[in-house]
Amino acid sequence: MTKQDFSIIGQPLPKIDAWAKVVGETKYADDFFLPRMAYGRLLRSPHGHALIKSIDVSRARELPGVYAVITGADLPRVKFGILPVSQDEEALCTEKVRMVGDAVAAVAAVDEETAERACRLIEVGYEPLPTLMSIEAALAHPEIRIHEYGDGPNVHKNVALQFGDVEAAFAASDLVREDVFFYEGNTHLPMEQHAAVAHATPDGKLTLWSSTQTPHYVHRLLPRILDMPAAHIRVVAAPVGGGFGGKLDPFAHEIAACRLSQLTGRPVKIACSREEVFYIHRGRHPVLMWIKTGFTKAGDITGCHLKTWLDGGAYGSYGVASTFYTGVINPVTYKMPVYKFEGARVFTNKPPCGPKRGHGTPQPRFALECQLDKAAEQLGLDPAEMRARILAEPYTKTANHLTVTTIGLGECIDRVVEASGWREKWRGWRSASAGASTAPAGKRRGVGIAASAYMTGAGTAIYWNSMPHSGVVLRADRSGGVTVLCGATDIGQGSDSILAYLPAEVLGIEPKDVHVHPADTSLTPVDLGSYSSRVTLMCGMAAIQAAGRLRGVIAQAVAEKLEVAAESLAFRDRKVGVPDQWERALTFTQAVELAEARHGVLAFAGSYAPPKRAGKYKGGGVGPSPCYSYSACVVELSVDEETGEVELHDVWIAHDIGRALNPLLVEGQVEGSVYMGIGEALMEGQVFRKGLHKQPSMLDYKSPTTLETPDIHTFLVETDDPEGPFGAKEAGQGPLLPVPPAIANAIYHAVGVRCDEVPITPEMILKGLELRRKGKSARVGPEKIPLFKFKEALMVESAFGRPADAVAVRPFQS
Amino acid sequence: MTKQDFSIIGQPLPKIDAWAKVVGETKYADDFFLPRMAYGRLLRSPHGHALIKSIDVSRARELPGVYAVITGADLPRVKFGILPVSQDEEALCTEKVRMVGDAVAAVAAVDEETAERACRLIEVGYEPLPTLMSIEAALAHPEIRIHEYGDGPNVHKNVALQFGDVEAAFAASDLVREDVFFYEGNTHLPMEQHAAVAHATPDGKLTLWSSTQTPHYVHRLLPRILDMPAAHIRVVAAPVGGGFGGKLDPFAHEIAACRLSQLTGRPVKIACSREEVFYIHRGRHPVLMWIKTGFTKAGDITGCHLKTWLDGGAYGSYGVASTFYTGVINPVTYKMPVYKFEGARVFTNKPPCGPKRGHGTPQPRFALECQLDKAAEQLGLDPAEMRARILAEPYTKTANHLTVTTIGLGECIDRVVEASGWREKWRGWRSASAGASTAPAGKRRGVGIAASAYMTGAGTAIYWNSMPHSGVVLRADRSGGVTVLCGATDIGQGSDSILAYLPAEVLGIEPKDVHVHPADTSLTPVDLGSYSSRVTLMCGMAAIQAAGRLRGVIAQAVAEKLEVAAESLAFRDRKVGVPDQWERALTFTQAVELAEARHGVLAFAGSYAPPKRAGKYKGGGVGPSPCYSYSACVVELSVDEETGEVELHDVWIAHDIGRALNPLLVEGQVEGSVYMGIGEALMEGQVFRKGLHKQPSMLDYKSPTTLETPDIHTFLVETDDPEGPFGAKEAGQGPLLPVPPAIANAIYHAVGVRCDEVPITPEMILKGLELRRKGKSARVGPEKIPLFKFKEALMVESAFGRPADAVAVRPFQS
Repeated sequence: MTKQDFSIIGQPLPKIDAWAKVVGETKYADDFFLPRMAYGRLLRSPHGHALIKSIDVSRARELPGVYAVITGADLPRVKFGILPVSQDEEALCTEKVRMVGDAVAAVAAVDEETAERACRLIEVGYEPLPTLMSIEAALAHPEIRIHEYGDGPNVHKNVALQFGDVEAAFAASDLVREDVFFYEGNTHLPMEQHAAVAHATPDGKLTLWSSTQTPHYVHRLLPRILDMPAAHIRVVAAPVGGGFGGKLDPFAHEIAACRLSQLTGRPVKIACSREEVFYIHRGRHPVLMWIKTGFTKAGDITGCHLKTWLDGGAYGSYGVASTFYTGVINPVTYKMPVYKFEGARVFTNKPPCGPKRGHGTPQPRFALECQLDKAAEQLGLDPAEMRARILAEPYTKTANHLTVTTIGLGECIDRVVEASGWREKWRGWRSASAGASTAPAGKRRGVGIAASAYMTGAGTAIYWNSMPHSGVVLRADRSGGVTVLCGATDIGQGSDSILAYLPAEVLGIEPKDVHVHPADTSLTPVDLGSYSSRVTLMCGMAAIQAAGRLRGVIAQAVAEKLEVAAESLAFRDRKVGVPDQWERALTFTQAVELAEARHGVLAFAGSYAPPKRAGKYKGGGVGPSPCYSYSACVVELSVDEETGEVELHDVWIAHDIGRALNPLLVEGQVEGSVYMGIGEALMEGQVFRKGLHKQPSMLDYKSPTTLETPDIHTFLVETDDPEGPFGAKEAGQGPLLPVPPAIANAIYHAVGVRCDEVPITPEMILKGLELRRKGKSARVGPEKIPLFKFKEALMVESAFGRPADAVAVRPFQS
Repeated sequence: MTKQDFSIIGQPLPKIDAWAKVVGETKYADDFFLPRMAYGRLLRSPHGHALIKSIDVSRARELPGVYAVITGADLPRVKFGILPVSQDEEALCTEKVRMVGDAVAAVAAVDEETAERACRLIEVGYEPLPTLMSIEAALAHPEIRIHEYGDGPNVHKNVALQFGDVEAAFAASDLVREDVFFYEGNTHLPMEQHAAVAHATPDGKLTLWSSTQTPHYVHRLLPRILDMPAAHIRVVAAPVGGGFGGKLDPFAHEIAACRLSQLTGRPVKIACSREEVFYIHRGRHPVLMWIKTGFTKAGDITGCHLKTWLDGGAYGSYGVASTFYTGVINPVTYKMPVYKFEGARVFTNKPPCGPKRGHGTPQPRFALECQLDKAAEQLGLDPAEMRARILAEPYTKTANHLTVTTIGLGECIDRVVEASGWREKWRGWRSASAGASTAPAGKRRGVGIAASAYMTGAGTAIYWNSMPHSGVVLRADRSGGVTVLCGATDIGQGSDSILAYLPAEVLGIEPKDVHVHPADTSLTPVDLGSYSSRVTLMCGMAAIQAAGRLRGVIAQAVAEKLEVAAESLAFRDRKVGVPDQWERALTFTQAVELAEARHGVLAFAGSYAPPKRAGKYKGGGVGPSPCYSYSACVVELSVDEETGEVELHDVWIAHDIGRALNPLLVEGQVEGSVYMGIGEALMEGQVFRKGLHKQPSMLDYKSPTTLETPDIHTFLVETDDPEGPFGAKEAGQGPLLPVPPAIANAIYHAVGVRCDEVPITPEMILKGLELRRKGKSARVGPEKIPLFKFKEALMVESAFGRPADAVAVRPFQS
């Protein structure tokens, strides 16, 4: 379909729930109040690492107003974790705490104050153990074991893959660079803190309302944790006030609320404080990276070898996936015929890390894009031109066997290069500032560029891998309304709206005529969750399938009535008819009545399962996606050589969205991603002192405000991908990725300082300037990599360069 | 299927929502509280009949705390009514009030007290008109017109039908009786008063939660009344705390709440007071009846001629249907080869009458069954034996073209005759008491018998007649849970539970594994509503169809996996397997996972449309039902000849339920019907003084308590009807019907007084005894019938006696 064929798609429509957000009627989990509700609090460990020798809750239980106090002894002795391979958490720790913030007991009381006071009356006997607070410390102290499982002492996961002969590639290169980078951890910082309300009812059933991105996964886990049948549990995702990956795990407060409700017979709410969220968050992994890449004189990449060390914190969470992700996506962007990846995730006594917007990929993206900038300089190439030259080819497989369909990255680069005046600025300012190391200190301007790719939905599920990943049940009723039931969780990205737009487009009605009921394991068919940029594509395809089935039945009834061919019918303006006999068209309501009278209830299911494209090697299932989005970014900034402060002026970002189903929503996602990328590049870092977070509040943890946000110029590139709904690909995560390296590259362009670590602080820049003044290499960043033996690399034949014939392309049948 | 084939059906299981009722967690409409909610009150007319000359709301609007005051001028000038032929109501009257209680204005305020105070500040200029407070008065004063429409002055509906030559039948009879009866109006008296909460949101949509039995009909009407698209309105039936037909109409308070919400931007709740419910109720029609029946010596009915005059009150409501119903069901019980019916509904200045349990049929049932008792006496027959002799034949058509399938009435009569010791008591006591007119006054015992029939669901709908009447969407998920979406409203009868039992039976799981989401026009497919005893049959058949489709898909997947034939699979104990290889059976959860992986989302719709059996004459669509239930009742009582007081001792009631899906629920319905029949027979009457209800409170309006309720002995007769779900027919209304005539007949048996009017008061009995002492006819009741010319009777050939070959019997395919 071409753009002019659409009536809803491509329009800058308001979100269907915008009004509720604007007038404050959206009910987040913490806005739920049920009669007789009790309020819960968790008692959390003040130790980073300690054995639990005793827990005495007797004084807490005696406090008036306390309904129940529980410890791990009140739950089945099962460990859990979002990934089947990392079942290492207890909702309430029984033997050991591994981080400050680990929960050891929970209280339900008449109000939060009483619950809090009761927590303080609980006496826990701890035997402190040494804390391991960094990758290096964790690897250096195998005698101190945080967990008893994993791929080595304090090593959660150790993975090594080699696609082709990387050493041979380096030997045949004109230039080989080795660089070391560090990307500090940071947190999602959603406006809404985690909260849950559990209600166990006398019929033995249980409902959990939670600010979760994955109600169906939580539903999958609770039966085992609570020892009751899944069929008797209902999980409802309340509207999520920002997730960014921080609400993807099952959490202690959810489980404690459930158990407390079962014990008290009351609904129980537990809302986490902002401080608690800084501990439970599952944020961005700190990653130390070593990257070695070979180039030809022309800038082509001959091969790449990447090592990543992830600081996983105290638990597994999604960490195995994160580890793979650090090594998987870079080859999707550029031709990289030979590729080797070694990754290790270590346990430390810090809050566990997991998925955050871009899950595992901003870190290696930072490394690659900064290294490309360095290589281009060495090769005397314009880094924009160099990138444009080495782009991956559409409809091919990458070295690591990922199937790529459309690639709009070339156009993305063109757009930001054009709009930013890159050529003039990059060439012109370079000689005037970065090159002019002897010029007097001042505010210097620079531009930097970077590109990136991101997946549109994980091709493999955590559970039920062979099942559809998303389902939609769609029903038309005699009022002319259409109801969509879908398990997707709107975390602010607008998935509810997309689920109204797509059926409206197919059926020729207005989004307002569509009622979307999301994210309720009892009401809605499964959707795996709002993660991995999968919802628009997967739920969207399911919705289109369901709407297509409905359209077919309606068309058949109308065709019989009008005595025309069903294929000749158009659905638009809430009517169904033959375009050149539009005066005979039935209203949509009439058409539905007619079809229902002939067919019975007009309810149709749509399902989506991604194409099976997992690489045929261990770990080959992490990374395949139906299609990939692309972004290119140019940043213009000034660096104050006196203070080291960076001022951003403009960000030009172009994003290959496939098709902008609603350009307003896409631009919102792109701008949000840019804003978050700026925070990660320049301000945000989770840092700890003996296990205690140093900035556990929104006063202390610095994140950009509108004052620190530059003008963002967004360009949407539409490649009409055959895998996506009406051609759409992802927008919610990918555009973050090029921002940190573009900033680092622009800083180098401005003042000649290479910051190989984020967040880039004024102190780092001043240190780099000082080194430069001393005539040393003006590089700031990690110097060493850990002494660590990766497992033997799994040798896999590189799939790069293969023709597209192996690629299953399934264009949308309109 | 035979009884032993079932695992759920036939078990006395608890209702799935019993826990919520017991612990008080059911949220009725008046339990809804939304943030910023305003509270509304209606200003109601104190006049029974008056012109509205002016309405001044200015002082009310100025009262602090008042958000909005509306009159009819703030609504589109459309009249509405539940039946398309009787669009005669205004939510807020603009020109005229026709009853005390007619609403003329509505207020939304910060609380109910303020709203009430504001109502008192509204000044309405009325010009009173003469009130017409009885059938006779309405017919005698054609110069006073309550409405300008109808079949004559103050005649809402006038209908006359003749099936065969009734005069010829009378001429050929051994005995012809003419009798006149009166059945006073009464009210439903549900424990829950009507309440509604409306919420108009800034996106232009509107949600109405209401204690309604017909959310889809309300949804159908609101768009026109509010002038907005149906697709933007959502009507949710809150759990209904008793309806009995009193919550079937759209009501002024619902519409006012909607408009006030639209104007204020706040949710608005209007909860009616008990006094208001006595006016808005749409209760049992007062009906005056003349009945002439011919008999052979053996007791066979040769022909019957029935005239009914209904006191309809001020508006149409369901009155056209009520009028037909008074003439339609009697021929379903007994062979009545020739039949003539004339009915008229008149308007009066009383609250409008509509459907109440048994809708339009207890009144003519009272007339017929009392007349049969008189005829049996004249013919020297045992009235039980006489009824057993003249029963209608199964699988035939009645004179008025109704298709009858199974008839368990013979067994019902046998059961109550046996259990009550009828033969001995009737013959023995007769000579000792009723016959002994000269015996001294005292407490005398008597027994009476009556039988009845009732429909199981109206075969025709009010709107969308060609469409399915009920729909179910059923979905199985990977947790092993099954979700049922159905528009049916549980009004206490247990329809939610039935919707869990039936899929559980088909799928071999437990009702607890089924999640029922009812009665929400946005979420659920259409069900016409909880009226006419239609829900168990119609929704049940749709649920079985949907469950059968799901079962089929699951069976196919399991059969492939186990390499067996799908037909050989059993579903039981939450497993699916071949009975003689049960150890290989999959769990239901495994089976669902397997089937979903192969088929996609497991969501299936089921639909039900009743067989098209409307008689081929005008009005032939009122009365046809897929099948009919039957009841027989023996009452034993004492009459105190000093005080005229009646004491009930025992009620034996047998009900042909087809199949008792849950005998506990059926017995509850039967006992509830008996209790209500007792109230109508002996206590309850809606009486008015100049338009004002004389007993508008539960203190004044007398209804039986447990103290007045005798031992009720219930017998369920199962005839396994091919039209019903697993053979089930209705239970919720039919068992009321024989109770009043059985009581009247027992009173005659005890003291020889014929009470041809209900409620039968001590005064009436004393009057009868006085007449008897004076040697006059000991009959108490109406003496005259109105001077009224019915329209020319529509001559239709009687269908009686035709063979069953024309009857479309569609047995359930398991």
